[in-house]
Amino acid sequence: MSVLIKGGRVVTAADTFLADVHVEGERISRVGTSLEADADIVVDATGKLVLPGAIDPHTHLDMPFGGTVTIDDFTSGQTAAVFGGTTCHIDFAIQSRGQTFNEALDVWHGKADGKGVIDYGFHIIVTDLEEGGSLEELATVPDRGVTSYKMLMAYKGVFLVDDETLFEVMRLAARTGALSMIHGENGDVIDVLVKQAVADGNLAPRYHALTRPPELEGEATNRAIQIAHVAGSPLYVVHVTCKDAVHPIAKARRAGWDVWGETCTQYFFVDVTDLDEPDFGGAKYVFSPPVRDKSNQPVLWDAVRTDALSVISTDHCAFLLDGQKTLGKDDFSKIPNGAPGLEERLKMIHHFGVNEGRITLNRMVELLSTNPARLFGLYPRKGTIAPGSDADIVIFDPARKTTLTAATMHGNQDYTLYEGTEVTGDVDTVLIRGTVVVDGGELKVEPGFGRFVKRARFGQHLV
Amino acid sequence: MSVLIKGGRVVTAADTFLADVHVEGERISRVGTSLEADADIVVDATGKLVLPGAIDPHTHLDMPFGGTVTIDDFTSGQTAAVFGGTTCHIDFAIQSRGQTFNEALDVWHGKADGKGVIDYGFHIIVTDLEEGGSLEELATVPDRGVTSYKMLMAYKGVFLVDDETLFEVMRLAARTGALSMIHGENGDVIDVLVKQAVADGNLAPRYHALTRPPELEGEATNRAIQIAHVAGSPLYVVHVTCKDAVHPIAKARRAGWDVWGETCTQYFFVDVTDLDEPDFGGAKYVFSPPVRDKSNQPVLWDAVRTDALSVISTDHCAFLLDGQKTLGKDDFSKIPNGAPGLEERLKMIHHFGVNEGRITLNRMVELLSTNPARLFGLYPRKGTIAPGSDADIVIFDPARKTTLTAATMHGNQDYTLYEGTEVTGDVDTVLIRGTVVVDGGELKVEPGFGRFVKRARFGQHLV
Amino acid sequence: MSVLIKGGRVVTAADTFLADVHVEGERISRVGTSLEADADIVVDATGKLVLPGAIDPHTHLDMPFGGTVTIDDFTSGQTAAVFGGTTCHIDFAIQSRGQTFNEALDVWHGKADGKGVIDYGFHIIVTDLEEGGSLEELATVPDRGVTSYKMLMAYKGVFLVDDETLFEVMRLAARTGALSMIHGENGDVIDVLVKQAVADGNLAPRYHALTRPPELEGEATNRAIQIAHVAGSPLYVVHVTCKDAVHPIAKARRAGWDVWGETCTQYFFVDVTDLDEPDFGGAKYVFSPPVRDKSNQPVLWDAVRTDALSVISTDHCAFLLDGQKTLGKDDFSKIPNGAPGLEERLKMIHHFGVNEGRITLNRMVELLSTNPARLFGLYPRKGTIAPGSDADIVIFDPARKTTLTAATMHGNQDYTLYEGTEVTGDVDTVLIRGTVVVDGGELKVEPGFGRFVKRARFGQHLV
Amino acid sequence: MSVLIKGGRVVTAADTFLADVHVEGERISRVGTSLEADADIVVDATGKLVLPGAIDPHTHLDMPFGGTVTIDDFTSGQTAAVFGGTTCHIDFAIQSRGQTFNEALDVWHGKADGKGVIDYGFHIIVTDLEEGGSLEELATVPDRGVTSYKMLMAYKGVFLVDDETLFEVMRLAARTGALSMIHGENGDVIDVLVKQAVADGNLAPRYHALTRPPELEGEATNRAIQIAHVAGSPLYVVHVTCKDAVHPIAKARRAGWDVWGETCTQYFFVDVTDLDEPDFGGAKYVFSPPVRDKSNQPVLWDAVRTDALSVISTDHCAFLLDGQKTLGKDDFSKIPNGAPGLEERLKMIHHFGVNEGRITLNRMVELLSTNPARLFGLYPRKGTIAPGSDADIVIFDPARKTTLTAATMHGNQDYTLYEGTEVTGDVDTVLIRGTVVVDGGELKVEPGFGRFVKRARFGQHLV
Repeated sequence: MSVLIKGGRVVTAADTFLADVHVEGERISRVGTSLEADADIVVDATGKLVLPGAIDPHTHLDMPFGGTVTIDDFTSGQTAAVFGGTTCHIDFAIQSRGQTFNEALDVWHGKADGKGVIDYGFHIIVTDLEEGGSLEELATVPDRGVTSYKMLMAYKGVFLVDDETLFEVMRLAARTGALSMIHGENGDVIDVLVKQAVADGNLAPRYHALTRPPELEGEATNRAIQIAHVAGSPLYVVHVTCKDAVHPIAKARRAGWDVWGETCTQYFFVDVTDLDEPDFGGAKYVFSPPVRDKSNQPVLWDAVRTDALSVISTDHCAFLLDGQKTLGKDDFSKIPNGAPGLEERLKMIHHFGVNEGRITLNRMVELLSTNPARLFGLYPRKGTIAPGSDADIVIFDPARKTTLTAATMHGNQDYTLYEGTEVTGDVDTVLIRGTVVVDGGELKVEPGFGRFVKRARFGQHLV
Repeated sequence: MSVLIKGGRVVTAADTFLADVHVEGERISRVGTSLEADADIVVDATGKLVLPGAIDPHTHLDMPFGGTVTIDDFTSGQTAAVFGGTTCHIDFAIQSRGQTFNEALDVWHGKADGKGVIDYGFHIIVTDLEEGGSLEELATVPDRGVTSYKMLMAYKGVFLVDDETLFEVMRLAARTGALSMIHGENGDVIDVLVKQAVADGNLAPRYHALTRPPELEGEATNRAIQIAHVAGSPLYVVHVTCKDAVHPIAKARRAGWDVWGETCTQYFFVDVTDLDEPDFGGAKYVFSPPVRDKSNQPVLWDAVRTDALSVISTDHCAFLLDGQKTLGKDDFSKIPNGAPGLEERLKMIHHFGVNEGRITLNRMVELLSTNPARLFGLYPRKGTIAPGSDADIVIFDPARKTTLTAATMHGNQDYTLYEGTEVTGDVDTVLIRGTVVVDGGELKVEPGFGRFVKRARFGQHLV
Repeated sequence: MSVLIKGGRVVTAADTFLADVHVEGERISRVGTSLEADADIVVDATGKLVLPGAIDPHTHLDMPFGGTVTIDDFTSGQTAAVFGGTTCHIDFAIQSRGQTFNEALDVWHGKADGKGVIDYGFHIIVTDLEEGGSLEELATVPDRGVTSYKMLMAYKGVFLVDDETLFEVMRLAARTGALSMIHGENGDVIDVLVKQAVADGNLAPRYHALTRPPELEGEATNRAIQIAHVAGSPLYVVHVTCKDAVHPIAKARRAGWDVWGETCTQYFFVDVTDLDEPDFGGAKYVFSPPVRDKSNQPVLWDAVRTDALSVISTDHCAFLLDGQKTLGKDDFSKIPNGAPGLEERLKMIHHFGVNEGRITLNRMVELLSTNPARLFGLYPRKGTIAPGSDADIVIFDPARKTTLTAATMHGNQDYTLYEGTEVTGDVDTVLIRGTVVVDGGELKVEPGFGRFVKRARFGQHLV
Repeated sequence: MSVLIKGGRVVTAADTFLADVHVEGERISRVGTSLEADADIVVDATGKLVLPGAIDPHTHLDMPFGGTVTIDDFTSGQTAAVFGGTTCHIDFAIQSRGQTFNEALDVWHGKADGKGVIDYGFHIIVTDLEEGGSLEELATVPDRGVTSYKMLMAYKGVFLVDDETLFEVMRLAARTGALSMIHGENGDVIDVLVKQAVADGNLAPRYHALTRPPELEGEATNRAIQIAHVAGSPLYVVHVTCKDAVHPIAKARRAGWDVWGETCTQYFFVDVTDLDEPDFGGAKYVFSPPVRDKSNQPVLWDAVRTDALSVISTDHCAFLLDGQKTLGKDDFSKIPNGAPGLEERLKMIHHFGVNEGRITLNRMVELLSTNPARLFGLYPRKGTIAPGSDADIVIFDPARKTTLTAATMHGNQDYTLYEGTEVTGDVDTVLIRGTVVVDGGELKVEPGFGRFVKRARFGQHLV
């Protein structure tokens, strides 16, 4: 099988040029002016952008949470993803307390096997080093291509690990070549605030944000950075929402420490006032860390522009407003935390980031594709358009207007955070490993096409 | 009883002027040029400085630690203090696990009653809200004139409290008008590092510093600041040693938060290389937080000059090198933590701070006397020279040279950190509440002269 | 002559205490509790504050500018001052091009002699080292008690000096013990912008601010700081208005450089939108540097709180709205630059600074009195309440409400920037050198009472 | 003509991948795995890096200075360049006072015509808007492909322009799409310091640095940034040497201003102590801004890593030590300012930057090639390896050791700043526009091969 993409404007993290792209089998074979190659399929990309497929390093498909399960499984979630130009994602395999890490990985492989329409990997979430897994066992996880250890400093009694565990796992990461990841919020203090709010009868969605103030995100982020530095481990801070957390990351990066930060699409667009949307509409915006004061949004744009933050992910974690979010109708603390975003990311960032002049097109590619690939052991297999790389390619029409609405999206979600937003720029055609997966608004592959990717260790190339 | 101090140069936190000071009973009655007042005692202070007595808000007298007890009790420690120009100190009443706060206060009052030669107060150290004290009881402690709650984020298994306790106590402080105080070091991580060092056979004194890196002080300091801000409590960070901790304090202060920091004399002068002093001499420098890299010393001087740090205390916590420090001869983790400093502080700071041009004389008074008084509810009763204030006065000869040596000091210590250091500036005469306590190199009062001071709540004047 | 002020609350830069103040002749003789002294005059200050007289280091009385002369001479201006609690000011003797410095001083002495009701000093403004004065002559100026050299980086063709002159004068200041002062705005660039605006027909008052953007104040301020540092001269930056200029001053101060900054009352309260006041009312707010965007106001409050800025002056430079400001009715560039403020300063800063919690009462005293005295060679003669100091004392009623209005003010001004503002806190009685100058709303002395003060050199005490 | 480069590792600013590169005529036609293309020339690059040719935006060939002329003309200088992997440079056409800009360009074209072996462009240096050129004429210069206006704030009486000119030219640049460039040092103050040093008999080379302190570079840099921001012009600061100048650039960039900075190879390696090299050897290190204290070197590495600085150039300006530098044997102020560097840059930065872990290989390509191309209107014609770009390619052996010595270099210089330095990594083969220019240590083209490049305006692509 071969494909020739003709006449488009290829965009990488550094370069922009007019070129044809020739694919043989699963990989890009040639990039050139006026390629005369024979090809089974020829795609006309004149006037279009030819982008490396977006990569989402932060999703939660088929995940149990708070007595329910996220509404998107590996088929529906990945279908949403690919229609949004995302060709690879990394989900979280969660160790339940009492479970070994390998058992957890097996469970998550079971959820994904035969279901996927895009490529995927896993991070492991460490919750328990006493009854379930051990450091010894955790040391073996990278051998299965799972080269990142995530820990949560929030969700006390569920996911929260103490600083001793945090440090021990980071020291292990330094040895095994894994990347440490943290969710940075001080769960101890949040727990007190939530109980107090509930006791005081403060039960509306807005109390979700009020009980998780930004100081506690800044604090935990800084704590993780300092501990990781003592441990000698590279650190990736997920879903940064506010200046309190941007500041310590930026400071560490200026000092040359191995620290990176990610924010998510939604934090650029929704803010704390949205929690007051009537008729329990505020529940749509309940996720953690919470939406923040609007003054944080320009800080986040500056941060992604200046590489204080290096990745924009989705933290896609979709619950139905009707039937799932409503579990917390009378008590914000019971609202399942999360929102969808896999299909919206590229379009939103292209429109409000690139079209509105906040970041360049190259920087968008770096934030959505190249940097996730580099940081998580996928590069150069994925994350760029270059000979030898997987032919994960998005043909993107920068001029086509489209309106975001849940009604026409491809996941199981019953709302989008951006309902009714008109953007300029839309996905035309998506290839994964040389196969056309989306074209003409239709999915062209069957579940099971997507493949698990064994990722390289931190700092190593995946060839 | 009345005293007239003639012809000296009075120095307050703001002013310097030639004046006589007249004392009636325990208080200053008049400050003036050429006072013609009758007085029982006339002291000639011509050519001398007339300073408000130094106040030390951080001492540990008669304190059990690591299987032994600090060598200075309330008599010997306070005697050292007053010969060093310190006329009031605040010691720490430590709640043992299982003990109520009132029991702890009773114990500490028992240690001090009838023993003191200078005035004193107590902070309460909170270690246990479950089996011993409760928040309700802690709320009553300020009624006894103990208006500061201290917590330690270090010494896991002994003093360390978790973030939930930290936050709960700070919220209480916000209600009761107490000042929250913290020892900021991440004890969880330190505990892992210490165990590792011991397991690896790294047992020399230098490992005391290596297992307590500055990142962990910076981290805990920032954590306490953020949590205190959420709790609405004023915060005082004790014994700051390094830029990692100065930075978050300075940042909070610039933002107008109610945060203050203290450093101690020793951190300006001794550094990590001193731990390698041969023949176990390094043990003299074992205290926590540990001595740091020398590059931190100019940072500390800048910090006290610019009010990033507002107090210089001693953390006087004396152990004999011979017989106590030696408990850790074969294992640094068993060396009792602490060093003497009560007698040395004023002379060292006057010489190396004022004489060498790093701070002004007024700023020295502010750091050693006025600020401790203001922050801990002693002002204006103590901390300045003004009508109505206690006549706690040091007549200081700025020109007399003296050499610091343990041999001639007045506490029970068998070493000083500054052995052999020659300084210019020495204490001549000390008055407390109008009584001459030190003069001509002799102590003029009996144990029991010193009095417990019921301190005002945070932000309030003690009249 | 002797005066006894009974029962007030004395406030200095550091201390607050209840005490009586006894004055003999021109100086304070005693401060004490329950002074029983005989006195010719007894003033009851119960419930009142007893403050050191405010000092204004930045005024322009009887100054020619733009074809007219400021409306307040040394009598009317000083009368306004003393009703506002200001007991000493330092005006600017301006060297005209071609004139020697001594000639300039003679001219200014001539303006003030026999006119004053408060004490005063002069700075010298250097405009010309080629045809008029020389460095040699300038070196002699401090001998006349004029110990500060001011230069302007703005007003091209009138006052502006180039960087060579700036540097030469600063080097001289380093030798003669004078303090260098600068007006920091880039006059070269402003000149281009003003000409362009006029050429484009942009003639309304608002263009005064638009042609003097804050970048140019920040730039010149930083330039002066760097040049002064190379020259080895202490530097005082007058009338700082914006974060662009606060930042380099704060940075230099943190580094321990001898740099200080001043802002003026008006910059806390009026902003760029006021220039659009109808009926040419905007002209009231035309002075340089110009009013700024409102976002600078909290920055200025933070700066005076944290000692990034150390003095609040008035830059009193009054022109009648009707008849003088109107010179620029058709062309903003012809509006005389300046506004009144001598009578308003203390009340405005007390109300909006102290009453509203932005600064403490002690800090207000430091900003308005003690720091100007210290920096300009007046301390401890002036700037505090202490034995031996001049009895320049303001008895201030912190509880009395008053409304600011030009109609009842004592200068020649026909407007105040704060018309109709109600404040709590007012001046009761003012003493200068032991003489009651204001009491019961009346001026009690004749012109000529005020005396020229020969100031000490930088860093030296005036006794 | 066609060329096929087989088996190398292609490195761009973002990507690194194994690929063949096929060139047809002057441009790159294809990049691919296992290209089977026919080609006239096949180059085996196995084990080698395939880099875009380095671009040097800062050179001075055939330039009169201080009574002599730089020793390298366009042939010798460009020969040195290409042996060092530089395939394009931008030199400065200097307007003499009284000369029009077009005359100046004609003069410089005359110097280069028929001489070059690599491609080149010109910046125009503005010195005079009164007698020679005018703003109107300067507006036409970009039409000749000269799209950057450089001004010097130093060299009083020779190049220095005042702030009015600076601002006027920057406003023009904002209109014409030119990039403003500045040499940032305060020439007014330097001039005083130099005269003073000479008058004081301080004549040795070390006084070159002592009379140009870093504060004056920081000052001028900040001044240019602020003025450019008011003017609305993009700004490029040449040869940044110290933290004083890095700081304002970094601050502006974080704020999103259009400001970029360049440093030069030498500032990473030589420092102020080198000026004391005996036997007048210090003269080798005399250039402006001067060498600095060594503490600036890590700051510069951090700056190029974090994009505070975006380009590393050479400021190649070669004078013979013997016969030219010696003009200043008895007076440092007469030493011609400048040093060679064209041949050394890539090797030094590769070895000490990449090999020693301070920057990545991709970042090196960005600093030496892609960023200069982007900023100066050469991209994507030059500055990357992509289809459609000029085939300006360096085949670089990252493993070959070589020793830098003037004896074997290709310019006319009689010394190198790095004499005897051993580096790992050397240039094998260089192509320019598809022609092999260097191979096997030999130059393969004749003078006249190099071509003038008409550059695009700022922000526009050159296709």
